[in-house]
Amino acid sequence: MAEGDGKHDLIREKLGQSAGLLEAHGIDCWITFVRETAVQRDPILPFLCGGDLTWHSALVLTRSGGKYAIVGNLDKQAVEDLGVYDSVTAYVEGIRKPLAALVGSLEPQNVAVNFSRDSEIADGLTHGMFLLLRDILSHAGYEGELLSAEPVISSLRARKSPEELDRIRRAIDATLKIFAEVRGFVRAGRSEAEIAAFMLQRVDQQGLETAWDRGHCPSVFTGPDTAEAHYGPTSRPVAAGHILNMDFGVRLDDYCSDLQRVWYVPEAGSTAIPDEVSHGFATIVEAIERARREMRPGRLGVDIDTVARSFIVDRGYESFPHALGHQVGRFAHDGTALLGPEWEKYGRKPRLPLEEGMVFTLEPRLKVQGRGTVTIEEMVVVTAEGAEFLSLPQRELWIAQT
Amino acid sequence: MAEGDGKHDLIREKLGQSAGLLEAHGIDCWITFVRETAVQRDPILPFLCGGDLTWHSALVLTRSGGKYAIVGNLDKQAVEDLGVYDSVTAYVEGIRKPLAALVGSLEPQNVAVNFSRDSEIADGLTHGMFLLLRDILSHAGYEGELLSAEPVISSLRARKSPEELDRIRRAIDATLKIFAEVRGFVRAGRSEAEIAAFMLQRVDQQGLETAWDRGHCPSVFTGPDTAEAHYGPTSRPVAAGHILNMDFGVRLDDYCSDLQRVWYVPEAGSTAIPDEVSHGFATIVEAIERARREMRPGRLGVDIDTVARSFIVDRGYESFPHALGHQVGRFAHDGTALLGPEWEKYGRKPRLPLEEGMVFTLEPRLKVQGRGTVTIEEMVVVTAEGAEFLSLPQRELWIAQT
Repeated sequence: MAEGDGKHDLIREKLGQSAGLLEAHGIDCWITFVRETAVQRDPILPFLCGGDLTWHSALVLTRSGGKYAIVGNLDKQAVEDLGVYDSVTAYVEGIRKPLAALVGSLEPQNVAVNFSRDSEIADGLTHGMFLLLRDILSHAGYEGELLSAEPVISSLRARKSPEELDRIRRAIDATLKIFAEVRGFVRAGRSEAEIAAFMLQRVDQQGLETAWDRGHCPSVFTGPDTAEAHYGPTSRPVAAGHILNMDFGVRLDDYCSDLQRVWYVPEAGSTAIPDEVSHGFATIVEAIERARREMRPGRLGVDIDTVARSFIVDRGYESFPHALGHQVGRFAHDGTALLGPEWEKYGRKPRLPLEEGMVFTLEPRLKVQGRGTVTIEEMVVVTAEGAEFLSLPQRELWIAQT
Repeated sequence: MAEGDGKHDLIREKLGQSAGLLEAHGIDCWITFVRETAVQRDPILPFLCGGDLTWHSALVLTRSGGKYAIVGNLDKQAVEDLGVYDSVTAYVEGIRKPLAALVGSLEPQNVAVNFSRDSEIADGLTHGMFLLLRDILSHAGYEGELLSAEPVISSLRARKSPEELDRIRRAIDATLKIFAEVRGFVRAGRSEAEIAAFMLQRVDQQGLETAWDRGHCPSVFTGPDTAEAHYGPTSRPVAAGHILNMDFGVRLDDYCSDLQRVWYVPEAGSTAIPDEVSHGFATIVEAIERARREMRPGRLGVDIDTVARSFIVDRGYESFPHALGHQVGRFAHDGTALLGPEWEKYGRKPRLPLEEGMVFTLEPRLKVQGRGTVTIEEMVVVTAEGAEFLSLPQRELWIAQT
C-alpha cells in the first residue's frame, strides 16, 4: 500500500539521521525499550518502528550505524517488513537473554535511554521499565550510568525533513480552509459550542482528525469572563462588544497544525471596532512579527520569548501566562526547545538553541478590559538564515456578522 | 452533554473505590504525576480526570478519602468542572511549590506512585518525571521510599463497575454483529486484505473505532504459512483446504472487545471438513470451556492457563506461544492479573489471584499440519462463584463459501 510505503520511507529517513546524531552527542548505543505500546507509547516510537509492539521490545541504534530490533515472536514479521533493521531477533518467553547477548556483543562505552526531566518527548521510558532495563544491562556486564538520550531524540524530532514539512503544510492548509468556512458562521447569538460543532463537522467530512482532544479542539472562547484555551466550548452565546478566539488544529498523515484566529463582534448594524480592541490586535500582530524576525539557528528560545513579551508589557498589557511558542510535529506540542520564559515548568527548554528545520508556533496574547482576550497563533519554520511563516498570517481582525 | 455526564459519573465511581483500596494496601498517599498527556498518557488518567493535562499535574488521593488536584492555570476550569476533587490548585510558573506544600501538609507515612516492573497499566510514571517528583517530595520533607501503586491501580482497573461491564457488552455485541456480516463474505479467492477492508468499512459506517491499530485490526490470517496475529492482512488469497482466522475488536464509549473466530475453506462444491481440522476445532472449544469452569475469585492465572495448555498438549499439539488470556477494558490488553504461564515477559502477572469483576479473554491456539492455525477467542467475566461468557461462544466451525 502507498501509505505503508510512505511510512517506511519516513522511518528510513529518520533512522538515517541517527548515527550522525549519536556521534555528535558522544553516545555509543541508544536503546529504546518499550512494551504494550497500545497502552502507553514512547513518543519516539513512530520514528523507529511505526506500528505497536506488544511484548518487551528493544530498538538498539549504535554510533557506528548498527540497527537492531528484539521483539516478541508475533511482532517479528511486521518489524522485518520495515526493511530498516540489520537484524530482528524474536523471542517467546522473555527479552532478558537476547537483549543481554546483544549488548554484551556490542560492548558499548556508554548507553543512552529515553528519559528526561525537561522534555516530555524524550521521556518515553517508564520508571518500571528503567528498573528492568538496568537489571538486564547489568547482566550483560554493563555497569555504567544510563545517560539521557534527550539531545538525540530532540534533534531527530525537531529537524523536519522535506516530507515532514510537506505534511505540516498540508495540515495548515486544511486548517485555514476550515477557518475560512467558519468565518461566515460566527455571529452574535450563536454559542461557542455551536461554532465548535460546525468546525468538527467539517473535520469529519474531510476525513481529518483534530490535532488534540476533540472536546477542546477547537477551543472557542468569547468575552472577558472566559476560561480561555484548554477549556471546552460552552453554551455561552457570542455577544456584541466581545472578542472571540479560536484555537484549532488538525492531524493529517500523522502531522499537526496548531493555529488561532480572532474575531470582534460589533454592535448590531455596525462594523466599528473600539480603539482598545484595534490597539490590542495591532499589538499582537506586531509582537509576532518582531519575534519572527529575531529567530534564526543558534538563538535561544528565551530571547525570542522576551522580544514579544517585553513589547506587549511595554505597551501596558499584562504579561501572558504561557510561552510565546512551542514546536509542532506529530503532536500539537512537540519538541524540547521552546520559545518561552525561564519558568520552572519549562525546565531547560527555553535555554536550547534553535536549529534549522524546527517548526514553532508564535502565540502571544493579551487582555482587553471588558472585551476579552486577543490572541493569534501562527506557525513558522526556522531556515538557515531566519524564520518563515508556514501559515498565511492574520493581519486583519475578523468581524463577526451581526 | 450526556456523554460528558457519563464520563464524570465513571470518574466519580472509580475515585469512590480509591480510599478503600488505599486502606487495603496500606498506602497513605497516592500521587499520579503527569505532563503533556497528549504526548504520553499515564494509562490511569481516564479514571482520575478524563481530558488531557498540559503542564505538570499531580492528582493526589489519600487513605482518608482526600482528593486533591494541582494543575496548570489553563487546565484548572476543566478539572474543577469534574466536581470530584476537594480542591483544584492552579499555578502559572511551576508545580514545585504547590505540590511540596500539599504533601507537607498531608504528612504522609508513605507515598505510592505509578511504576511497576510487571504491569504496563500501572507503569505510567516516566523515569524523568520520577526523578523530578523525588526531588519535589524531598523538598516537602518526605524522604521515604516511593512505593509502587500497582496493587491499587490494578484493582481499580480490574474490578469493572456495572457501567463498565455494560460498555464492554455493547462493544462485544457490535463485534459479533460485524463477524456475522463478514461470515458470508469470506470465500475462496478473496484476499485477507479484502476481507479486512470489508470489516473496516462496517466499523466506519457504524461510527466505531477499532480496539487496536487499524493496520492489524482485524488481523486476518489464512493457511499454514501465515505470520499469524499482530501481522497485517496480506494479499494472500483464501484457499481451499485452509483454515482462516480473524482477530478483531472495537472500542465503543471507551471500552473494548477482543474476539477471534475461525473458518474452514472447503474444496469447491464440498462442505466436508477434514478430520484433523474438526479435531483441532473441538480441542480449542473444549480447552476454553475447561479453563472457564476453573475460574473463580482467588484462583491464580497460571493455574487456569495450565488447564487449557495441558489439555492441548496432552492431545498431541504444540504448546501455544502466548498466554491463554488477558484482561480487557479501555484497551484490548488491559490489566495486571493474567491467565498465563510463568514466562519471564509476564513477570508476576500469572501469580496474581482472580478478583470478581475482572474481564478476561480465553484464546488458546493450535496448528493443524498443512491447514493452518485454529484459534477462538472468547470473553468472560469473573463472578462471585465462577466465570460467565460475555460473548456468545463459537461452538461450530464456520464454513467459507466456495
